Amino acid sequence: MKPLKLLVVGGVAGGASFAARARRLCEDAEITVIERGPDVSFANCGLPYHIGGEIATRDVLAVQTPASLNDLLKLDVRTHCEAIDIDRRGLRLQVRNTATGECEWLPYDKLMLSPGASPLRPPLPGIDDPRIFTLRNLQDMDRIIAAADAGMRAVIIGAGFIGLEMAEQLQRRGMKVQLVELMPQVIPPLDAPMTALLDSELRRNGVEVFLGDGIRAFRPGDSHVGCELNSGAVLDADLVILSIGVKPDSDLARKAGLELGARGHIVVDAFQRTSDANIYAAGDVVETQDRVVPGRTAVPMGGPANRQGRVAADHIFLGDKARPYPGSIGTGIVRAFDVVAGITGWSEKRLRALQYPFASVTVNDSHHASYYPGAKPMTLKIVWDARTGRLLGAQATGFEGIDKRLDVLSTAIAAHMTVEDLCHLELAYAPPFGSAKDIINLAGFAACNRRDGLVKHTETLPTDPAVQIVDVRGKPLADAYPAPATVLNIPFATLRANLGKLDKNRPVVTLCAFGKMSYFAARVLAQNGFDVSSFSGGLKANVDPRSPGKLPTA
Amino acid sequence: MKPLKLLVVGGVAGGASFAARARRLCEDAEITVIERGPDVSFANCGLPYHIGGEIATRDVLAVQTPASLNDLLKLDVRTHCEAIDIDRRGLRLQVRNTATGECEWLPYDKLMLSPGASPLRPPLPGIDDPRIFTLRNLQDMDRIIAAADAGMRAVIIGAGFIGLEMAEQLQRRGMKVQLVELMPQVIPPLDAPMTALLDSELRRNGVEVFLGDGIRAFRPGDSHVGCELNSGAVLDADLVILSIGVKPDSDLARKAGLELGARGHIVVDAFQRTSDANIYAAGDVVETQDRVVPGRTAVPMGGPANRQGRVAADHIFLGDKARPYPGSIGTGIVRAFDVVAGITGWSEKRLRALQYPFASVTVNDSHHASYYPGAKPMTLKIVWDARTGRLLGAQATGFEGIDKRLDVLSTAIAAHMTVEDLCHLELAYAPPFGSAKDIINLAGFAACNRRDGLVKHTETLPTDPAVQIVDVRGKPLADAYPAPATVLNIPFATLRANLGKLDKNRPVVTLCAFGKMSYFAARVLAQNGFDVSSFSGGLKANVDPRSPGKLPTA
Repeated sequence: MKPLKLLVVGGVAGGASFAARARRLCEDAEITVIERGPDVSFANCGLPYHIGGEIATRDVLAVQTPASLNDLLKLDVRTHCEAIDIDRRGLRLQVRNTATGECEWLPYDKLMLSPGASPLRPPLPGIDDPRIFTLRNLQDMDRIIAAADAGMRAVIIGAGFIGLEMAEQLQRRGMKVQLVELMPQVIPPLDAPMTALLDSELRRNGVEVFLGDGIRAFRPGDSHVGCELNSGAVLDADLVILSIGVKPDSDLARKAGLELGARGHIVVDAFQRTSDANIYAAGDVVETQDRVVPGRTAVPMGGPANRQGRVAADHIFLGDKARPYPGSIGTGIVRAFDVVAGITGWSEKRLRALQYPFASVTVNDSHHASYYPGAKPMTLKIVWDARTGRLLGAQATGFEGIDKRLDVLSTAIAAHMTVEDLCHLELAYAPPFGSAKDIINLAGFAACNRRDGLVKHTETLPTDPAVQIVDVRGKPLADAYPAPATVLNIPFATLRANLGKLDKNRPVVTLCAFGKMSYFAARVLAQNGFDVSSFSGGLKANVDPRSPGKLPTA
Repeated sequence: MKPLKLLVVGGVAGGASFAARARRLCEDAEITVIERGPDVSFANCGLPYHIGGEIATRDVLAVQTPASLNDLLKLDVRTHCEAIDIDRRGLRLQVRNTATGECEWLPYDKLMLSPGASPLRPPLPGIDDPRIFTLRNLQDMDRIIAAADAGMRAVIIGAGFIGLEMAEQLQRRGMKVQLVELMPQVIPPLDAPMTALLDSELRRNGVEVFLGDGIRAFRPGDSHVGCELNSGAVLDADLVILSIGVKPDSDLARKAGLELGARGHIVVDAFQRTSDANIYAAGDVVETQDRVVPGRTAVPMGGPANRQGRVAADHIFLGDKARPYPGSIGTGIVRAFDVVAGITGWSEKRLRALQYPFASVTVNDSHHASYYPGAKPMTLKIVWDARTGRLLGAQATGFEGIDKRLDVLSTAIAAHMTVEDLCHLELAYAPPFGSAKDIINLAGFAACNRRDGLVKHTETLPTDPAVQIVDVRGKPLADAYPAPATVLNIPFATLRANLGKLDKNRPVVTLCAFGKMSYFAARVLAQNGFDVSSFSGGLKANVDPRSPGKLPTA
């Protein structure tokens, strides 16, 4: 039998995983990897950290070379080689050597497209100024490092995951960083209250944050680039980072007539096959099944890319034993200075936009036993299907243990667990590692209390003066971080003796530092005939725990 | 309607959670908590850490007092009060004030038994010497602190979770620690290879470890206690800690004729009801459904206790809305100095003893992206049902991120996930937090490879000279940490060119540092017609990564 010819377009995450898995499954396949850039299989998620010097040596980011891939996997890797056309009927791919300009047609039996996604560069005035950078590969990284210097002013457009990583790393280089975001919050995939801690951490570290404002034009000058925002404000930059998102590199697929999704991603089935059965695709360029809410999704992350590449190789070589890709959940995490925040699954705002029937709750606790040294506060929000109780998403923010909670909850989402199931997760507990009732259990309890009608929650404090707002914190805390004047302080321990101070004919909202005592108070009041809601997540949920007391209002 | 009278025996984890939840569900219930000791709701898991000074102040361990519980929860807490008899027909409990000796009968509508478990104190010669301690409560802790002094010799009998915590903490106090364990390994619930790193960490820190040896007698002398072991060895101790396990405090239940399990635990149903519908039980004293393998189990940990107390209160007050306790998984974690190890679900040896059809695999990886500073090695073993692929247990050891992996895998077990599902967990990834393919994904991949017949694993190196053992590590590593003389070194990159050096008629075992290259090599050899197995987990799996190269042999 003739050896199978595999062509792979793109030699990073998805393509590299596909090629490696294919080789493990078939020693005699002819596997050729076409890579436009000079590098294959590099650690693109590490790029910002080398810019800031946190990853000291560049070498560690170049995970493999064409030579090492040939040694290890018998791959024919062609760098500086661009795929420019697919002859689907003829089963061949046209490639061009970007150094020599030479073109040739390479035959394939199966083709894998894993070209990735490009940073967006909108056609704004001045966009071509060489001081405006995007970050995709090692060469972009090198250019930014060459251009960046301590004391310079950097403007970062887009406060998503990469924007925040770059803000921290450029700050580490001694630059003055200004961060611009079109949405009224950093990390737009998260619900706004869950980003407040990140926001204050950025500002505390000297990053100037401009929210609800977008870039309108660049005004390149001799000494600097003026970044003109929609508001009219102009920020002066010696260096600009554009991190406003990515678009799939699907031009080749489009030209070949493969089916694309609404946002230009290649549509694939559960085995990563495109609309042409001989062509597979994986990574940032594809859209797959959404694993949480029925529909399609594109999650441009390394994890899904790697696993999709593997699924495609299995489908080619394992026959009936191949298992489908179950879809993507969308799990993301970011650290900015000391603060960490992340999300898995759907946010409240996405569900709200879809008019999906959901409920949510926010809880606070320490990341490990509060009596063990080093306990740090954390905030966890979960959203679930209001009809079935099924977990749809989770967001967490704090200082430590955020990744752990996201991972557990991502697993719970994948397993179609309900909020009831979260109550009974049996997580590892010793004082340095957790609590006997982990914050995830607490979130499950709070959700079930809500489901069972034991407590009503409010996410914002009412401004209607008819509502009685009761602060049930102890007096020292209430005095140190006073709530607004309209709030009555009745410490929880004295609440039962002071019910007479409240009017049963007017609604009550209880509040406290973390949302726990306010829940206790709501239970006492509800059982005494009051119409009461607990302020979900407490006063500290939405602000830096190092400067508590600020109140979000509706 | 007359208020419901609830009596609670035991005011720590299970009992305290029951009482607190009951109060939240019912303001007017009369709730009385009977506690033998002077403290309620104290942080018993923190005791060892205060002995070593890691938790500096004692106060933080006394989470609540009778007065605070009255303020917060309107509980009538009676400390120094022992429950001595249940009149089931008369619905009353006899209690004795341990200070005055006075007895009285208290009526109940519902009774909760949560007395906990006592440290085992076998009737050995000399056992009553006052220098022999167990650790259950704050008073035990105080006594140990009063008796312990730098320079003293401590003998710890039992190298389970508490034994290891005590070994570290007594070492912190400057004591000379000797640790004795009847089983041939520390932390007997784990499979032996997964404890090797803990073992070497204890020794590296100066703890003398005596395995496969038990205590036969104590020989109290004037200056010290001689601890006579089964082997005949005698260890001199100024202070002895007995940490060989616990037994349920079920005498009261036994006397009342409640159904007990084979090991003396109170048998409860899924709503924590004992064989008497008016009596509930929770915590270390009960046995519940095993959540992994059909049968009964007792997991003496804080997490299950707290949640069981809650389930019981829900059953009394929530009617149809009450949800059952789903059973216990058994999740445990321990830190000794810099090393962490833990387990969730069933171990290989327990499954083997049950003749349960299982399979297992061990993988190694970094706890986060290897190119990001501070990456630490970790080893993960999973066991699954060989027929269905369902995950039955996991063990992990390393330095950081152990709790995270155990928590994810405990969640996967609770969700009845299979090894296939582990491949597609979408865990939070940024370089400081994980890898694009997390070690959990890798374990799933390895398990599926085994399921699909792509690779055979061996856990031990064969001693049969007919087997060709091939070390596929690079030459520098193989030279630095040589494998035994019988091993042939063929670096993986040169394997395809050197197939002629191997005899196709003799079996081959491939080995490497971490079990990954040996798997790659096994794939190459299998496809070239060899009968080959990969040494699961690699050379470093079973030894301290700081002194690699030791080989376990069969």
